[in-house]
Amino acid sequence: MVAESFDVIVIGGGPGAEVLAGRMAKKGYAIAIVESELVGGECAYYACMPSKALLRPAQALAEARRVPGAAEAAGGELDVAAVLRRRDEVIHELDDSGQVEWLDERGVALIRGRGRLDGERQVRVGEKVYEARRAVVIAVGSSPVLPPIPGLAEAKPWTNRAVTTAERVPERLIVLGAGAVGVEMADAYATLGSSVALVEALDRLVPNEEEFAGEQLREAFVNRGIDVRVGVRAERVERDGGVVRVQLSDQTELAGNELLVAVGRRARSEELGLETVGLKPEKFVQVDDRLRVDGLPWLYAIGDANGRSLLTHVAKYQAHALSEMLDGNTAVALEGEAHIPRVVFTEPQLAAVGLTLSAARERGFNARAYDVSTSGNAGASFYGRNTEGTSRIVVDEGAGVLVGATFTGTDVAEWIHAATIAIVSRTPIERLWQAIPAFPTRSEVWLKLLERRESELAEERADRGSAAA
Amino acid sequence: MVAESFDVIVIGGGPGAEVLAGRMAKKGYAIAIVESELVGGECAYYACMPSKALLRPAQALAEARRVPGAAEAAGGELDVAAVLRRRDEVIHELDDSGQVEWLDERGVALIRGRGRLDGERQVRVGEKVYEARRAVVIAVGSSPVLPPIPGLAEAKPWTNRAVTTAERVPERLIVLGAGAVGVEMADAYATLGSSVALVEALDRLVPNEEEFAGEQLREAFVNRGIDVRVGVRAERVERDGGVVRVQLSDQTELAGNELLVAVGRRARSEELGLETVGLKPEKFVQVDDRLRVDGLPWLYAIGDANGRSLLTHVAKYQAHALSEMLDGNTAVALEGEAHIPRVVFTEPQLAAVGLTLSAARERGFNARAYDVSTSGNAGASFYGRNTEGTSRIVVDEGAGVLVGATFTGTDVAEWIHAATIAIVSRTPIERLWQAIPAFPTRSEVWLKLLERRESELAEERADRGSAAA
Repeated sequence: MVAESFDVIVIGGGPGAEVLAGRMAKKGYAIAIVESELVGGECAYYACMPSKALLRPAQALAEARRVPGAAEAAGGELDVAAVLRRRDEVIHELDDSGQVEWLDERGVALIRGRGRLDGERQVRVGEKVYEARRAVVIAVGSSPVLPPIPGLAEAKPWTNRAVTTAERVPERLIVLGAGAVGVEMADAYATLGSSVALVEALDRLVPNEEEFAGEQLREAFVNRGIDVRVGVRAERVERDGGVVRVQLSDQTELAGNELLVAVGRRARSEELGLETVGLKPEKFVQVDDRLRVDGLPWLYAIGDANGRSLLTHVAKYQAHALSEMLDGNTAVALEGEAHIPRVVFTEPQLAAVGLTLSAARERGFNARAYDVSTSGNAGASFYGRNTEGTSRIVVDEGAGVLVGATFTGTDVAEWIHAATIAIVSRTPIERLWQAIPAFPTRSEVWLKLLERRESELAEERADRGSAAA
Repeated sequence: MVAESFDVIVIGGGPGAEVLAGRMAKKGYAIAIVESELVGGECAYYACMPSKALLRPAQALAEARRVPGAAEAAGGELDVAAVLRRRDEVIHELDDSGQVEWLDERGVALIRGRGRLDGERQVRVGEKVYEARRAVVIAVGSSPVLPPIPGLAEAKPWTNRAVTTAERVPERLIVLGAGAVGVEMADAYATLGSSVALVEALDRLVPNEEEFAGEQLREAFVNRGIDVRVGVRAERVERDGGVVRVQLSDQTELAGNELLVAVGRRARSEELGLETVGLKPEKFVQVDDRLRVDGLPWLYAIGDANGRSLLTHVAKYQAHALSEMLDGNTAVALEGEAHIPRVVFTEPQLAAVGLTLSAARERGFNARAYDVSTSGNAGASFYGRNTEGTSRIVVDEGAGVLVGATFTGTDVAEWIHAATIAIVSRTPIERLWQAIPAFPTRSEVWLKLLERRESELAEERADRGSAAA
């Protein structure tokens, strides 16, 4: 017997679910969210938000110390206890009542408990079965993968939850994995006073990004005393009371008090009842470009669960698109996914969007990269002074449009949206000369990038000219 | 007798001249700059650059103090002497040898002295006459206007030069005029320890910008102890030794140690020999959309001198365009001037581009403004915390494109370039949904703005629906 029926039932209550539910409710649909943990999801309590709370204080202080006049006033020590208290505030002391209120105000039903599919358009929560008239949306998010390293599971490693909510700063922290989570937490804990070792099996940090970004991050980390090991794997882990030891593939050993594992994630879909609708559990729930699960016209997956891109903003974007699709707007497509921005909030920061140079070439574009120094403009006399960094645009010279951009340096996170708009709009690169950057803002980096492109292309023409003569 | 001849002679050596000369030299033209003062111009020594050097330290410190954990480390006092020393560094102690070297490296001739026109395509510098084969470009910049207030000239007022290069901070400073220069210097000196009074004849601060910007600035200034007087005029000024008194139109009086006049500027064209080519001196040198002086096909004016927009980045933009035009590129037009960005580096900052709402309506657009709080997004938990501010987009709902944007708040200067690109590209506003902002960057303000527009338009449709029913 069906306890209650809704137009749409969303399993999981993270940022994607909230956007979807908020929008659908506004359109007049009856919608329920099923959540067994905190409404708001991993991002709000155990990922994006607390990590930024841990990172920001040291960066704000470092910036003040780069500015003569302010530096003299900012000579004290980072107050670690205050940082952790503020982090607790940011995660609302792991209390989701604010989010629940937000759902209430919008008339979204909240069903507390673990939701599992129970045949077509049915979701079971404990003893009760709910029916979805229109759609069930899987928005269960992801959980960290523990690689099969002998001794790892027994060593009680930290994953993103423990590292973002820790009440004390370990004396020594080992981090496995140098993707966004790994490098952000290595940076944060180093500034909070830990001795940090960072281990990455691939040959550089943030390996999916432009090579220079990983190299600059490595250099900055080493200068700040982080023990960075790239191209080595953890082969065995052992915990002995307060000490955890990691044997590496280069025959060296690391010792620490805590070990963070940040080597990948998978959909949190183990007990989701996928088998009741004929699906086999996989790492992620496969969906098509309309976020549909193949063969089940009532079943969708958004956010980390579908594995297309494990980023909160992508979950929100997909949720927005799905709310339109479920409302009958057939024109909607997931175009934005072609140029997803990524920001890594380390010092230096890394902000990227669209394709890296190598990714653009792999796709067959006649792609070229143009690089300038992030600090090579008048505005950089005042912000991020004496810090380095590289700004790169990747241009598809066939079509004459931007297809990617990467900025490294101090406080470059907000720069990326300009590049995103340039990519989305497919503005001819030559037309970007008409977008005047204000003087002296650091956005003059755009002028430098266009000048660099102009010079390189002119030199090349000159070379071809002299070769022909 | 002609001493030497060049393809192009530029009278004045500011940022516009530098861009023009650099680009023309690279194209192989013989080019000379005539400069009687410092190469680099007003901006580098007496305007944009030193003003930012005076403003930035207090802002970097204020931001550190808004971040718990950093705040505890940043409790000292702003070191005013260090601020002034850094300002001296930024203006290179008023030494232009770095700029001269830059010209040398590019093969640009530098003629030291006051340049004046001496008939067609001739420029006289002292005893010598130089000939321009192709063009003479007036790039003399601007100087402050002293309004005809009785006693003002005798009171030895400060203008932008004195206020940006002062070696001591006056105990009490009176500022006349609340445009960009006036508000920036009022803010800077208040943070450096002056008691500041700010007088504006119009009814609000930064009167050319959105009304809310002036109102928020006024509120912030008043909260910081600045004595703000709007809608009043200075009627008489008197200096008695170290004290200057200003009688206002509301019958009150202000007293200070220094008086800054920042009520407008005019081309520095008094001794330019305009009469030798049949021109009458006016406030600015009038030019057409190809930067030409009417009837003199060899004479051009760029930058402040032509009065189109007194901003360094506009001078640079015009110089870039003119370098193309003089090289025979007939396709070039001054499109970028239709959407000029403006940044006022106060706290709160003001960053704007294109049209304000009222300017858009005056131009006959079916314009609507959508406003959200600058701090109403997750990223604002970490940057500019607890500061307010407004983010506005102005949309031409007829064409469905952005025509203006204004952001107020902490550190919003770099936000504006995204809006500039959106305007230049004429990206359909609906398509901006595809430009995903990274979470949790403050660029999510774009999402909030699009949501606001969607809601308002939906409400309006609903209202029309119920009215029709």
